Amino acid sequence: MSESLAELQAKMKAQGEKVRQMKKDGASRDDLKPEVDILTSLRADVEKMIESEAESNPANKINRAGLEDLCKRRFLFTPSFSIYGGVAGLYDFGPPGCALKANLEALWRRHFINHDNMLEIQCTCLTPEVVLKTSGHVEKFTDLMVKNEKNPDEYYRADKLLEEKCEALLQEPSFEGDREQLQKWIRVADSLSAEEVDKIFQELGIKQAMNLSFPYPFNLMFKTTIGPQGNLVGFLRPETAQGMFVNFRRLLEQNGGKMPFAAAQIGLGFRNEIAPRAGLLRVREFPMAEIEHFVHPDHKDHPDFHKVADLKLPLFPQHNQLTDGKLRTDLTLRQAVDIGMINNETLAYFMGRTFLFLVKAGVDGSMLRFRQHLKSEMAHYACDCWDAEALLSYGWTEIVGIADRSAYDLTAHSKASKVDLKANYKFDEPRNMEFVECKINKGKLGPAFKKEAGAVIEALNELTDKQKLEMDAAIEENGVYELKICTGARYNITKEMVKVKTVTKRVQEVPFIPSVIEPAFGVGRIIYTILEHTFRSREMEDQELRCYLSLPPVVAPTKVSVLPISSNPTQFKPAMHKITDALKEHGISYKVDDSGQAIGKRYARTDEIGIPFGITIDFQSLNDDTVTLRERDSMSQIRLPIADVADLVYKLCTDRMTWEQAAEKYPKFDAQHA
Amino acid sequence: MSESLAELQAKMKAQGEKVRQMKKDGASRDDLKPEVDILTSLRADVEKMIESEAESNPANKINRAGLEDLCKRRFLFTPSFSIYGGVAGLYDFGPPGCALKANLEALWRRHFINHDNMLEIQCTCLTPEVVLKTSGHVEKFTDLMVKNEKNPDEYYRADKLLEEKCEALLQEPSFEGDREQLQKWIRVADSLSAEEVDKIFQELGIKQAMNLSFPYPFNLMFKTTIGPQGNLVGFLRPETAQGMFVNFRRLLEQNGGKMPFAAAQIGLGFRNEIAPRAGLLRVREFPMAEIEHFVHPDHKDHPDFHKVADLKLPLFPQHNQLTDGKLRTDLTLRQAVDIGMINNETLAYFMGRTFLFLVKAGVDGSMLRFRQHLKSEMAHYACDCWDAEALLSYGWTEIVGIADRSAYDLTAHSKASKVDLKANYKFDEPRNMEFVECKINKGKLGPAFKKEAGAVIEALNELTDKQKLEMDAAIEENGVYELKICTGARYNITKEMVKVKTVTKRVQEVPFIPSVIEPAFGVGRIIYTILEHTFRSREMEDQELRCYLSLPPVVAPTKVSVLPISSNPTQFKPAMHKITDALKEHGISYKVDDSGQAIGKRYARTDEIGIPFGITIDFQSLNDDTVTLRERDSMSQIRLPIADVADLVYKLCTDRMTWEQAAEKYPKFDAQHA
Repeated sequence: MSESLAELQAKMKAQGEKVRQMKKDGASRDDLKPEVDILTSLRADVEKMIESEAESNPANKINRAGLEDLCKRRFLFTPSFSIYGGVAGLYDFGPPGCALKANLEALWRRHFINHDNMLEIQCTCLTPEVVLKTSGHVEKFTDLMVKNEKNPDEYYRADKLLEEKCEALLQEPSFEGDREQLQKWIRVADSLSAEEVDKIFQELGIKQAMNLSFPYPFNLMFKTTIGPQGNLVGFLRPETAQGMFVNFRRLLEQNGGKMPFAAAQIGLGFRNEIAPRAGLLRVREFPMAEIEHFVHPDHKDHPDFHKVADLKLPLFPQHNQLTDGKLRTDLTLRQAVDIGMINNETLAYFMGRTFLFLVKAGVDGSMLRFRQHLKSEMAHYACDCWDAEALLSYGWTEIVGIADRSAYDLTAHSKASKVDLKANYKFDEPRNMEFVECKINKGKLGPAFKKEAGAVIEALNELTDKQKLEMDAAIEENGVYELKICTGARYNITKEMVKVKTVTKRVQEVPFIPSVIEPAFGVGRIIYTILEHTFRSREMEDQELRCYLSLPPVVAPTKVSVLPISSNPTQFKPAMHKITDALKEHGISYKVDDSGQAIGKRYARTDEIGIPFGITIDFQSLNDDTVTLRERDSMSQIRLPIADVADLVYKLCTDRMTWEQAAEKYPKFDAQHA
Repeated sequence: MSESLAELQAKMKAQGEKVRQMKKDGASRDDLKPEVDILTSLRADVEKMIESEAESNPANKINRAGLEDLCKRRFLFTPSFSIYGGVAGLYDFGPPGCALKANLEALWRRHFINHDNMLEIQCTCLTPEVVLKTSGHVEKFTDLMVKNEKNPDEYYRADKLLEEKCEALLQEPSFEGDREQLQKWIRVADSLSAEEVDKIFQELGIKQAMNLSFPYPFNLMFKTTIGPQGNLVGFLRPETAQGMFVNFRRLLEQNGGKMPFAAAQIGLGFRNEIAPRAGLLRVREFPMAEIEHFVHPDHKDHPDFHKVADLKLPLFPQHNQLTDGKLRTDLTLRQAVDIGMINNETLAYFMGRTFLFLVKAGVDGSMLRFRQHLKSEMAHYACDCWDAEALLSYGWTEIVGIADRSAYDLTAHSKASKVDLKANYKFDEPRNMEFVECKINKGKLGPAFKKEAGAVIEALNELTDKQKLEMDAAIEENGVYELKICTGARYNITKEMVKVKTVTKRVQEVPFIPSVIEPAFGVGRIIYTILEHTFRSREMEDQELRCYLSLPPVVAPTKVSVLPISSNPTQFKPAMHKITDALKEHGISYKVDDSGQAIGKRYARTDEIGIPFGITIDFQSLNDDTVTLRERDSMSQIRLPIADVADLVYKLCTDRMTWEQAAEKYPKFDAQHA
């Protein structure tokens, strides 16, 4: 929000109050008139400014209806089970959508897994309850819901309802409340507590108007039972991550015990969304791709950080979300790490790599931002988290989450399963290291804490070296140390109960529970983002408006079309087979359109589905064994030998050559029809 | 079972009866002695023959324990959630298993989807109840279970328990019952009704001994609810097929309305198996790959059938399963279709293509058979079905099912959803066609059937032309026609109720509901089959026994290893980077092992995981820029320039060149260590 709009709104508000006060004080009509005029003019200014802000927002220029029509007609994706009326939040990918998805996943595999030698695994969707209890999902993987107390069929996700209501109020020029407050609520909606949301609904009068219940948590996992007896509860995984955590030992072993390393997984996730909507953006079953980078908690630097350190990403840190709502585009990733805005190098490394990936895949870099999670919004396991958000016709939308989950998961699974999930930090040479030992005097502890003594001893054993020293210092100074255990209870530890001592040992390695940095990609959301960001239209010579998808060749479902100019089969077949055989040999996906329709019509059909190149076989081809090659975005064409064409397309589709270079190498061809 | 064993067993049985009768008749010891000796000797012969049959069975030569150890150590796959004790029937794929799976799926995509221009789609796993009710799965997708009446924690899948018990009895030389009957029960176990299974359990005394309940059906689908209200029941799909049926209209549209065509899908299926076991063979969540080939019910010939028609597959038709239990290997696919053994060309076409695929992927063709489903065993939707079964250490196991589902699914979905799922059969020229019309006299029907008249009219409207003529003939002859409706009720239709007439119309096309031929591949089962069939061991010069996987390069997780002979980093790095850069350029997966271990040890590690080729950089490489290339199975090596090696490996891995051809082109290299 620009400051001038805020200023203008403040002025309007003040003026409104002035007018009201004057009325109350019984001011004459003549006295009132000029003040009311000022107010009317201020209102008009605010209205105009809101309108012009909306217009300058690139997301409002996206022709969503046109894109939706295209997706439906060409079967990119479609609501599942639509002959039965469909099920909200479930979508099927048709042939081009399926190919786009496969290409995107292959690119992801090359860009992340192969590039950084990650260990790819595939785990099951069905997950027993114990795993998700340990991870905290059974208890905490919830959204707040509210329902109409008078009609239980009317229910809402509380944060989304709040966002919608605030947005509606902001569009209302006559709204005279605190607009900045509304903006702030929109930004923090999904991090509010049930009490906070309830209070706001009351303040805005929505609770009363809609008979809303107090917000209550709804668990987003799909539940089932495993086995014929029905007593083993299972869930469909809400993320692929847990499968990698529970396999940590085997993964470390496969990596020869070396740290750090990353595991990766491409697969399905499931979330029983309360109110699925917005096409592929909020669905109940979704393809995702996740990386778990395991690293020492105190050594989160990254050896390849320098390769992305100079990138300036559009950052939206906590501070700016809570204040002016503006992006920071002035910082390199290195600077953002140095000033502590981004927690560590590894997190920043993946933010940089993610940005490069998204842009390569067709996301518009100028419509991307990295938004830091607010403290209150952070997942229960995260210690810092940045979402890559894309600006869509639906507003800013998370498409990648990059979280530092700290050692939360491995610690929890290790405790619950009683399996050691530590790695070893190895030194080049054995070295002397100080360890802090804490001897516990059970004879004193027992009588003091009775039944609770066991829990106190366990908590003492889990203290870090630093905490042990703190305890020792506190006892030295005050004679007592207040020990807090996981249940929240506190116990007074006194001098005779413990004896803290620093000892030196010669060691070659020390064990530790690794931290995890997790970039998690919503494949469906990225696909939808690419579609919106590459959807264009252009006016042709005949004034016809044609839509097309400007997909990068690397993700385009089909790379090239093969179009014999006439449908005469015998005449063009030899040339066509020469070309398709060569394309097959190069592993390039192609589509033959020998429908005999006007060539312009056929180009329109291939442009629409994002095929980047088109080979046309014309009558000249029969004489000199040449064809034309057309590029989708520029619609320019070149003429080249049939023998060269497959290899050239291969190079164009694999970043080995640009269209500009091709156009320099081969003569331009001026066609009658574009 | 060889005939001579059956004969021997018959003799033994007769001799046993003779001895018993003699005892009963009070024969003397001296009279008995020679007869008992004959019986003892016959028993020994039977025992010996059973043993030798077991030995000659290649499945018994598979070193399953060795393979399992390998799979675990190298993390090919592992029980899921094993740190929590695991969940039966759930497995994770580790890095090499994941790569093997990806390669197999890519091969499948090329061999089937690209080869036949199929439309690939991806549908959701979550499926609303209505779809699976219509498909018949809610009612019929069950296995029979029996439980111990005295201990409900003891339960079994009835057919598997029967198979096990019969097999155990066959291994028992003293068993004197009908061995051929046991063999037959094993073959037909999963096609028996609850009553039949119960009767056999009683006959064998198993029911009494184990306190077995009467067999009851257990639905194998995982159930959940969709949405926050909990009233929309959903299941995890037991097959990917339904998603393709419900999208039929869109698919046909994408294919320009042309028939026949095929859709294909690679994705997960879920079955809540009663007793998962045998590693990847019977699991609860499994990757599968399915094709739905839509075709006119009366035109199931296939344009490309001639390409596979001369193949002689090992066929195991219904007849032989019920009689001698022998394979037919003397018939070409064309002959099998001509004599009506295989229902139609399209079914046979996919059987041939499936055989070629499996062998290409590494399945041993001599340990494969195509078994026809027995009538009683056929799925509720199938009209003919052939399973590709592999001989494994667990016995013959279905790995692909190729079913003719007739028009069952599309008919059912069309009825339930009230959406037209017909295609059009187009003629080249308009033609005159005869249609049979049936005019219904509601004035007569109404009073005759009262409340049921509606159902009768609906049934009359659904009669085919042939049925209408049959009705007309019956009424003509007997004055009455007995109409059976779907509920099973019968109604007498008489002359005054209907008027049947043949009319001629000029038409260009006729609508029809397509039949579906469905080849369904169990990806996990095929992976396990490949592993068993390619698992070998060999004795090295030093007498060490080494195991390895003789995986075809096309599916091998890693194509080539790069091994600098010494771990001196600076010396070998330039050559190594030259090679790895070229491999990357060719898109070949490789693994560097610069551990500095003895080269023989390193070869052993790469052989074990099935890496087909190894590039060794030695001291000679530093002088003349050549390296050695080793082939895994023959352990032979050739010497060639570094500049050639990536291209050669690429050719070897993509069937562009054989190892023999490479060995002719480049000089042999005799290494000290294999």
